[in-house]
Amino acid sequence: MIRAGIIGATGYTGAELVRILYRHPRVEISFLSSRSFAGEDISNVYPNLKCCVEKSCEEQNIDRAVEKCDVIFVALPHGHSVPIVKRALEAGVKVIDLGADFRLKNPEEYERWYGLKHGAPELLDQAVYGLPEIYRQDIAEALVVANPGCYPTSIILGLAPLLKNGVIKTEGIVADSKSGVSGAGRTPSEKTHFVECSESVSAYGVSGHRHRPEIEQELGKLGGTLMRVTFTPHLVPITRGILSTIYAEPAFDAAEDEIRELYESFYHRKPFVRILPEGVFPRTRWVYGSNFCDINFYADREAKRITIISAIDNLVKGASGQAVQNMNLMFGLSEEEGLMVPGLCP
Amino acid sequence: MIRAGIIGATGYTGAELVRILYRHPRVEISFLSSRSFAGEDISNVYPNLKCCVEKSCEEQNIDRAVEKCDVIFVALPHGHSVPIVKRALEAGVKVIDLGADFRLKNPEEYERWYGLKHGAPELLDQAVYGLPEIYRQDIAEALVVANPGCYPTSIILGLAPLLKNGVIKTEGIVADSKSGVSGAGRTPSEKTHFVECSESVSAYGVSGHRHRPEIEQELGKLGGTLMRVTFTPHLVPITRGILSTIYAEPAFDAAEDEIRELYESFYHRKPFVRILPEGVFPRTRWVYGSNFCDINFYADREAKRITIISAIDNLVKGASGQAVQNMNLMFGLSEEEGLMVPGLCP
Amino acid sequence: MIRAGIIGATGYTGAELVRILYRHPRVEISFLSSRSFAGEDISNVYPNLKCCVEKSCEEQNIDRAVEKCDVIFVALPHGHSVPIVKRALEAGVKVIDLGADFRLKNPEEYERWYGLKHGAPELLDQAVYGLPEIYRQDIAEALVVANPGCYPTSIILGLAPLLKNGVIKTEGIVADSKSGVSGAGRTPSEKTHFVECSESVSAYGVSGHRHRPEIEQELGKLGGTLMRVTFTPHLVPITRGILSTIYAEPAFDAAEDEIRELYESFYHRKPFVRILPEGVFPRTRWVYGSNFCDINFYADREAKRITIISAIDNLVKGASGQAVQNMNLMFGLSEEEGLMVPGLCP
Amino acid sequence: MIRAGIIGATGYTGAELVRILYRHPRVEISFLSSRSFAGEDISNVYPNLKCCVEKSCEEQNIDRAVEKCDVIFVALPHGHSVPIVKRALEAGVKVIDLGADFRLKNPEEYERWYGLKHGAPELLDQAVYGLPEIYRQDIAEALVVANPGCYPTSIILGLAPLLKNGVIKTEGIVADSKSGVSGAGRTPSEKTHFVECSESVSAYGVSGHRHRPEIEQELGKLGGTLMRVTFTPHLVPITRGILSTIYAEPAFDAAEDEIRELYESFYHRKPFVRILPEGVFPRTRWVYGSNFCDINFYADREAKRITIISAIDNLVKGASGQAVQNMNLMFGLSEEEGLMVPGLCP
Repeated sequence: MIRAGIIGATGYTGAELVRILYRHPRVEISFLSSRSFAGEDISNVYPNLKCCVEKSCEEQNIDRAVEKCDVIFVALPHGHSVPIVKRALEAGVKVIDLGADFRLKNPEEYERWYGLKHGAPELLDQAVYGLPEIYRQDIAEALVVANPGCYPTSIILGLAPLLKNGVIKTEGIVADSKSGVSGAGRTPSEKTHFVECSESVSAYGVSGHRHRPEIEQELGKLGGTLMRVTFTPHLVPITRGILSTIYAEPAFDAAEDEIRELYESFYHRKPFVRILPEGVFPRTRWVYGSNFCDINFYADREAKRITIISAIDNLVKGASGQAVQNMNLMFGLSEEEGLMVPGLCP
Repeated sequence: MIRAGIIGATGYTGAELVRILYRHPRVEISFLSSRSFAGEDISNVYPNLKCCVEKSCEEQNIDRAVEKCDVIFVALPHGHSVPIVKRALEAGVKVIDLGADFRLKNPEEYERWYGLKHGAPELLDQAVYGLPEIYRQDIAEALVVANPGCYPTSIILGLAPLLKNGVIKTEGIVADSKSGVSGAGRTPSEKTHFVECSESVSAYGVSGHRHRPEIEQELGKLGGTLMRVTFTPHLVPITRGILSTIYAEPAFDAAEDEIRELYESFYHRKPFVRILPEGVFPRTRWVYGSNFCDINFYADREAKRITIISAIDNLVKGASGQAVQNMNLMFGLSEEEGLMVPGLCP
Repeated sequence: MIRAGIIGATGYTGAELVRILYRHPRVEISFLSSRSFAGEDISNVYPNLKCCVEKSCEEQNIDRAVEKCDVIFVALPHGHSVPIVKRALEAGVKVIDLGADFRLKNPEEYERWYGLKHGAPELLDQAVYGLPEIYRQDIAEALVVANPGCYPTSIILGLAPLLKNGVIKTEGIVADSKSGVSGAGRTPSEKTHFVECSESVSAYGVSGHRHRPEIEQELGKLGGTLMRVTFTPHLVPITRGILSTIYAEPAFDAAEDEIRELYESFYHRKPFVRILPEGVFPRTRWVYGSNFCDINFYADREAKRITIISAIDNLVKGASGQAVQNMNLMFGLSEEEGLMVPGLCP
Repeated sequence: MIRAGIIGATGYTGAELVRILYRHPRVEISFLSSRSFAGEDISNVYPNLKCCVEKSCEEQNIDRAVEKCDVIFVALPHGHSVPIVKRALEAGVKVIDLGADFRLKNPEEYERWYGLKHGAPELLDQAVYGLPEIYRQDIAEALVVANPGCYPTSIILGLAPLLKNGVIKTEGIVADSKSGVSGAGRTPSEKTHFVECSESVSAYGVSGHRHRPEIEQELGKLGGTLMRVTFTPHLVPITRGILSTIYAEPAFDAAEDEIRELYESFYHRKPFVRILPEGVFPRTRWVYGSNFCDINFYADREAKRITIISAIDNLVKGASGQAVQNMNLMFGLSEEEGLMVPGLCP
């Protein structure tokens, strides 16, 4: 059994890790920490776990964590991962960071977007961007994985086959994403107040969202050039789920069928990406609680525009499920282990 | 492996059976039928199942069903189960009926509430009411199980320890239940229209709901007398979940602690009933997607009233999960097999 | 024109007062105060008001308020009204307190439930309980009106005709209320977090809610005896609305028609109470944004139980609309002025 | 008083017309017709109207309608307006058609998108496109007004100042719209089932939606050229509201301030368009139940992209409110009459 620890177990992504790892046949949850709920049983904080996971949250003691774990999931806000990663590396314990500290390869970009000097720029090269559909091999060999952001996951998976194959131009891409409220985290705020969210749709971060440089970094690698995208996240009154509608200009006059073939071939043997049948477009409800990313597209040859739509559960494929998928690869397990569960629908 | 078939696989309870059985380690789904979607793959109707369950829905052919199955789940509206049950019994195939045809022991009551003459009154005695927390032994030996209604499940489990132990009077019980919209089924109607449901709470069936005689039959057995309850179901804008708030008059001046002990002892080794800690009251979100029934109570000695609150997921413990729990018992498996999954929360 | 001021204008009930008074043909909003947003325009805090109400929020200066107003609405949490009421009375300015400080006639009850010694017990007799359907005449002559709580409004209006006419027993009454989240106020908390509220129904205050003594005080007056009720409030994922389902035992075997007549006669010329036709039960959606209270009932003679269902918008008839109805009476206007607006539906 | 009739009074836009006209100081509702509910009181179908509007729905008798009305609102599905418009014109009665039959100026386009030969192509020139912010003068003189679609209203108002002033290129425009479920109408369907809508966001009409030619026609007039836009409508789980996020390429390097000035000058004295302050982006909740269209934008000079966001209530500014605004103009009233009401928020 893999002994897994979660630092920051009582945030939404932490709790989701607990839920997923509980069902994982090869994992034993060996350590949970929580700043706010140290000393409390996780099932007091998340009573859904009662009778399934009865385990106490400890103080955030890294030494103790590395001692008790083969892998540590860090589910903390950005800016807190560096000392944990360093200590884990020393001790030979693998780390999967669900925060943003190791996603951007350029420490100056990190500083610009997160307002912090990066604490260990020398480790950035070592951290692998944990998108298994693209970096499966690197992940398998990684000691530190930077788990992707939720928006980037939905957008990069939607565009990868097109960029990789030169089907679309690298300029002028627009990504319009709609996210559920759990993406805003557990801390109450005006933004997450039920009365403010319900019956409301709104855009935010219009002038710049922290996930944009991450999207641009990864799309740029796929497109082979520096890229600048337009990205607008929206808040919609659902709990879980991101639907990204992505608009790109075709590089040449490709037929629907050819494009579909590229998608299918790109995602061949990638068990968590589902290319939907022609004319059937993703709904977040279909991936609710699952690790799937559903994708479809429409090529409007007259308007010279390809519209790609992708859907994920932001807490699963957009965070904790993907983290477990990465863990599976890092420990030589089947990518699907513990994750091949359908969404909850209805 | 147990070969399981579902007749009526594309309704909400049918689809939920598919979802649950897919994860069951001892079951193989061997037969699916659907009147509306015969010939179609179940994953076209419920795309959440794509890549997990790829199986075609057949016509509703009972002969074929009994041949391919060790157990048949009937997930049809009331009035359709009798011929299936008869044929299955002949063939020695076990049946779990999620509809209402075998719940009421008195065929006249059935006729009164469902407006139909019962097609096989001689089988009513043979059918076991499938509430494992009460009839575990009978279920283990049953060939036909009548799976309880969703409201009755939440109400009977809430009251059983009190009635059984004579803690409350058998008169004057009020059950006020709040249900999610999936309980109204998949067929679109004014009642289930998003615009009518959202921002609305309403009572229905105030003058008489079909689940009342079922509740009264089972409470009467526990209380050892004919019982008449007041039952008001409500529709609330959630997808899944029933919260029942039940009011009863104490038979004597019992202390909180004594009552709690009765609950705990009654549900000892009943893995799916969770008595919450003092002062923590059930929320439907905590059982979302799970087979648990959460219960707590408050004894107001001054007002001479005990208030009991129970929560279930109407599609799981209130229907398909309970059906699988029954199947486990009927086949000598552990009651928990394939079902010990925490709710999806957040 | 009546010059009206609102102290606490940026809470939900304050903002709702602004919305209602803006449309009132006989009122000019002359003063708004807000602790959190002093100096800001109300339409910055509630952008829905933009182009309709452009007025700055001032500091909470009572001297200035009494100078600029003929009537002051106090929309503050309990414990803050006494000095305002005193100063207003001195200055001859009428006050409508939407908080709880003047609702309970017994200062010891106040202290017991609110944990505060009452600051002006000598004023309690002077304050009129502002339920116009019952105290219309007293309100017309009042200088201080204690605007009722939202739950009490829905429950008292549902029971008044029955208690007044001795149709039901005064013992054993159960009120099961379902409320929208706006009732919990504007301050973000775990309780009001979208992710906690959505897909969830839960009870709270099961062992005692501050509205219970208020309900008991008023029902007791109607019933002519000390009364003890069982009251369970619930939180449901809607923004506005309270549905109360109330259970009572008939004092004699009254027929449906007789009871209906009592309701209709009791609420004759009470423009905001609508007794729905037989068999049509209230939905919160039908009163959304309006000052109506919809009521219907079912008399189950066999079970000896009358079930009464009432619906209000907690922010309108349950708070700000009722306050304006009271103001109308206090200033000799028609009760309906500025309030006879249908709910927003769909 | 203007005598107003509504044909199709029991659909969502019909009922919303009733609600708005009831409060209009210069209008008397003189005729309501409904195919499904002829003979029934409108307040039986929409109980929110009880005690406010008590009026019976008649059969759809056009002769009777023209006799009793000065203006007729036609709130029917497309394909039904032509005979009504013809008869009204003969009788000198003004008509506002909320359906799609008179929006497209080119009858071939109509046939292509609506699958019907147009019944009166000769009237198309006479019908004025009822977007008052653009065609105020023509509307004032019109006998027939084609009330715009909901999506087109939100998109055209968002882009008009930019296109009119040549700030953006006419090619490559993308409009990504998110709509509430009331836009899908009152007839129950799988699409509008609560269980399908809740916790779900999805795109539809990706390969072509009927509102696209309407958008292109009107943008083309503003831009002075044939235009082709990419338009993707989405369904989100709200009742009312459309948020359109629109992406365009600037024609030259315009500064934020210049663009803001163009918006403000274009919408000067257009009382229902609100340009929000810099950095504050529209939310559908802020226009809920109101006739406002809120707009803001962000000019990303680095990425050479202008992002425009607009919000309306699809049933008010997107349908019935705009129809009343048109009526005001057609009858020489102030545009604001009966409509200057803030949104319901919270």
